[in-house]
Amino acid sequence: MSGSISVDSFLLWAGVILAWATIEGCACTHAAGGGSSLSAVPVNSDLRERALASRGAAELVRSLTDEVGPRLAGSTGSKAAVEWAMRVLAERGFANVHAEAVTVPHWERGEESGAVVAPVQQPLHLTALGGSIGTAPGGVEAEVIEVDSLEALGRLPPGAAAGKIIFYDIPMDRSRDGRGYGKAVPARGVGAMRAAPLGAVAAVIRSIGTDHNRLPHTGAMRRDEKGPNIPAAALSIPDAELLHRLIQQHKSVRLRLTLGCRWLPDAQSANVVAEIPGAVKPEEIVLLGAHLDAWDLGTGAIDDGAGVGIVINAAQLVGSLSRRPQRTIRVVLFANEENGLSGAQAYARTHQADADKHVAALEADAGTGRAYGLRYLGDPQARERFVAIAVALQPLGIELLPDDAHGGADLGPLRALGVPMIDVAQDVSTYFDYHHTANDTFDRIDPESLAQACAAFALLAQGIADSDGDFGRVPEPKRQPDRRVPQPMSF
Amino acid sequence: MSGSISVDSFLLWAGVILAWATIEGCACTHAAGGGSSLSAVPVNSDLRERALASRGAAELVRSLTDEVGPRLAGSTGSKAAVEWAMRVLAERGFANVHAEAVTVPHWERGEESGAVVAPVQQPLHLTALGGSIGTAPGGVEAEVIEVDSLEALGRLPPGAAAGKIIFYDIPMDRSRDGRGYGKAVPARGVGAMRAAPLGAVAAVIRSIGTDHNRLPHTGAMRRDEKGPNIPAAALSIPDAELLHRLIQQHKSVRLRLTLGCRWLPDAQSANVVAEIPGAVKPEEIVLLGAHLDAWDLGTGAIDDGAGVGIVINAAQLVGSLSRRPQRTIRVVLFANEENGLSGAQAYARTHQADADKHVAALEADAGTGRAYGLRYLGDPQARERFVAIAVALQPLGIELLPDDAHGGADLGPLRALGVPMIDVAQDVSTYFDYHHTANDTFDRIDPESLAQACAAFALLAQGIADSDGDFGRVPEPKRQPDRRVPQPMSF
Repeated sequence: MSGSISVDSFLLWAGVILAWATIEGCACTHAAGGGSSLSAVPVNSDLRERALASRGAAELVRSLTDEVGPRLAGSTGSKAAVEWAMRVLAERGFANVHAEAVTVPHWERGEESGAVVAPVQQPLHLTALGGSIGTAPGGVEAEVIEVDSLEALGRLPPGAAAGKIIFYDIPMDRSRDGRGYGKAVPARGVGAMRAAPLGAVAAVIRSIGTDHNRLPHTGAMRRDEKGPNIPAAALSIPDAELLHRLIQQHKSVRLRLTLGCRWLPDAQSANVVAEIPGAVKPEEIVLLGAHLDAWDLGTGAIDDGAGVGIVINAAQLVGSLSRRPQRTIRVVLFANEENGLSGAQAYARTHQADADKHVAALEADAGTGRAYGLRYLGDPQARERFVAIAVALQPLGIELLPDDAHGGADLGPLRALGVPMIDVAQDVSTYFDYHHTANDTFDRIDPESLAQACAAFALLAQGIADSDGDFGRVPEPKRQPDRRVPQPMSF
Repeated sequence: MSGSISVDSFLLWAGVILAWATIEGCACTHAAGGGSSLSAVPVNSDLRERALASRGAAELVRSLTDEVGPRLAGSTGSKAAVEWAMRVLAERGFANVHAEAVTVPHWERGEESGAVVAPVQQPLHLTALGGSIGTAPGGVEAEVIEVDSLEALGRLPPGAAAGKIIFYDIPMDRSRDGRGYGKAVPARGVGAMRAAPLGAVAAVIRSIGTDHNRLPHTGAMRRDEKGPNIPAAALSIPDAELLHRLIQQHKSVRLRLTLGCRWLPDAQSANVVAEIPGAVKPEEIVLLGAHLDAWDLGTGAIDDGAGVGIVINAAQLVGSLSRRPQRTIRVVLFANEENGLSGAQAYARTHQADADKHVAALEADAGTGRAYGLRYLGDPQARERFVAIAVALQPLGIELLPDDAHGGADLGPLRALGVPMIDVAQDVSTYFDYHHTANDTFDRIDPESLAQACAAFALLAQGIADSDGDFGRVPEPKRQPDRRVPQPMSF
C-alpha cells in the first residue's frame, strides 16, 4: 500500500518541493513578525532540530515503565498510571491538566499453564487472550484440531470440533506498515467465538507476532454476549510450531490448558487530558492522543509508553517555542485502549458537543520506529493545506502517502463524528516481535528513532495549530473504516 | 584468541595447502586400493559433500526435542532420553549399543517467582540457578545490594551484605568464540557461595547471556558442603537492567524471591554408548561425545541436541562409507553434563584401564553454528599428523588454530588421563542468546550450518580413524586446563 510513490503523489511532491525553499527561506522574517493573526509561520527547522536532539520522549517511557510498569485497565497499575500522568503533565507546565472519568472493564489473568499431555509430554508457553473466561480449576484437556484459517474451521465436517480444542495456526508476515497484523489478527478476535457453537471446549492460537521467542502475545478477544463462550489462549510461536510438528507426526495430540483468568466488576479509571493553550484560537483543538493502559505481561514500553512519551514531549516542545501556537494543542492519554476502547468512547461522548472544534486528531500508538509516512483524512478540498504543513517533515525522511488516514484505535469515535485524522506512519518492522508480550519493556526503546517520530508529531502539531485554515470535516462515507481491508494504525 | 591467523599458523597452512592438491588428486587411486593396512586414505571429498547435503543431524535434533523435550538429570525426560538414544542408535545400525550406568543428582525447579516490592511494584522474570536451595515457602524479602564483580563483593564494608540480597550485575560480551561466557560465568558458579558467609540472604545474577528477552538463563552453581548456603536465581537481562535502573533512581530497592526448587535423592541414569567398529584396529577408539541431558527450561536443541545430532550423524556417515574406518568410532552420549558432570566422571572411571586405547576425543557441545576452527592437544611431536588430517576441512572454511584444544566439559576426565583432545570450534555468536533458557528449542537449529559442523566431525573421525599413526598422549603439564584463563568449549 505505502511502499512506493504513486504518480499522483510524485506530482504532489514536485509541487511541495518547489514550495519548500520559499518556506525555509522566509522562516526568520515571518517568525520575527510574531503577529497574532492566523498565518503559517514556519519555525519548523528550529523545532525540528530541537525535537531530534531531545531525549524527552524516551525519558518519559523510562519513567512510566520503570516507576509504574504493567497497567491493564482496572489494575492497581492502572490507577498508578493515572496519578503518574497527572503529576508529570503538571510538572511539565501543561495547562488544564485533568482526569475525565471512564468506567473500564476489569479482567485479571491469574495463574495459567498448558502442556501437550499425549502422545508426549511437553510444557507449553501460553497466555490467556484478554477477556477469555477461565477454565475449571483442574483445566480442560482434549484432542487438538489444527486449522489454518477461520474459513477452514467452517469447512470441518459436522461434529468434528465437538469436544475438541481448536488450534488456529496462522503465521503473521513481517512488514514496515504492519499489514500482516490485520490479516492474522481476526483469529484472535473471533476464533473462540466461532469455535464455541461447534462444541469446541477451548481455542488456542499461534501468537500474532513476528518473533521466535517463547513469550506468547496476548490481546483482546471478542465474546458472544449470548454465549456459549470457551477459554482461549495464545501459544508462543515456538510452541505453536512444536504443536504443529507433533500433529504432523502423530494421529492424535492432546492438550491440557489451565487458565485462572476472570472478570471482576467494572472499575473507575480516567482519560488524562492536558493542554498547551492556543494564543489566538484557544477553543480550536489539535488533539495528540496515545493510550495510557498497557497489557499486563510487559511494562508497555512500545505499546504504548512510546506514544505517551511522543505526544507529551511533542506538545511540550511546541509549547516551549518563543511564539505560542495559535490553536490549542491537547494531549489526551486514553484509558483502556487494549481491552475495549472505553476511554475512546468516553472521550467522544464527553466532547461530542465540541467535536467540531477539533481541527485534527493524531494518535501515537506504533512503538519506537522511525516515521516514514503521513496520511490525511479530512475535506478533500483542504488536502493542499495539509500538503503545505507536511512539507516541513520532508527533511525527516517522511513522505505524504496517497492513502486515507485511519486515525488509530482511540480516534475511531472522533472520526465517526467527522474530526479530520492525520496518521504518522512509523516503521513497525520489529514492533510485532514484542507487541503484547512480556518483552515489551524499556530496553526496546530506540531513543533516536523515537525522537524522530516525536519530531514528526511536534512539527504536525505546530503546523496544524498555526495553519491559516482548517481541514473541514471527514466526508460522511469515510467516517467508518473500510472493514474489508486490514487497517493500519490500529495495533 | 582465534579471530586472526598468526604468522606461525600462516606458515603451517602454506605447507598444508601445498599438500592439499596431492591428497585430493590421488583420492580415487587410494580408495580403489582399499587395502587393510593402516594408511591415510582420503575419501574426504565424497564424505564432505554427503555430510554437507545431509539433514540427518537436524532431524535427530527434531526427534529428540519434540518427542522427548526437557531432560534434566533425574527427571522423567532424562529416562525417556536414554530410551530414545538406545532406540535411535540401534535403528541406525550402530554396533555395541549399550547403556553404562551413572548415578546422577536429582534437582527439581518447582514453582518460582520474584518481584520488586518497594519503592515500586514490578514482577520479575527469574529462574533458580541449578542446584540452588529453595526459599522458605513465603519467599525471602530484603533490600538489594548491587555489585559489578565478585571482587566488588569483597570490597563491601563489613556488615554491608548482612540481611541483604546480593545482585551481581555483570554483562556478557558477544563473540564468535564465546570468550565472554568464561569471563561472566564465575558469578553464577560461586556468587551465592561467596555472599552467604557475609550474611546475605539470597543472591541474584544478571543472566549470563547476550539476548534481551525476558527469559532467564539458568545454569549450575556451586554449593559449599560446609554451608551456609543461600538461594540463588538469575534475572532475565531486561529485568536485571530494570533493577539496575531502579537502584540508580532510588535510595533503597527491595526484592522478594520465592524459589520452590529442591534436592531429591540421587537417581540412576546412563551414558549411552554405540560404535562403528574399526576394520583393522577395532580396539583403538576415536571418541565422539555430546551430552544427552539438558536444562529443564527449554527442550535442549542447541544445548545439546545439536551435539547429539552431530555426533550420531557424523559417525553414521563414516560408517556408511564403502570402506570401513580402520579404528573404531565410538559415540558417547553423556548423562548429566549440566548439573555436575557425573556422566563424564563415570565414563572415565569405567574406561580408565583402556584410556590409552582412546586415540582422540572430540565433543560437540556448541550449538548449531558453523565450524570455523580446529584445535589440537596431544603429543606435540604428532601435531603434523593432525595437520595432515585437518587439511581435509579447509574447503569447509575451517582453519587450524594455534591454541591448545580444551576438549569440552565431558572430556575433562579423559584429558586428565592423557587422551588427546581435538576441538571443533563453532561460531557461538548467537548461542548465548538462547543457552539455558526456555528459548532453547528446535526452531533455533539452522540445518545448513549444523550440517557443516557435522561434516567437520565426520571428516575428523574418518581421518583420525584411518591415520597411519596416533597423537601420543597429552603431556602431563597440560592434562588440567589453565584455570587462569577462560576456557573455550565448556559451555
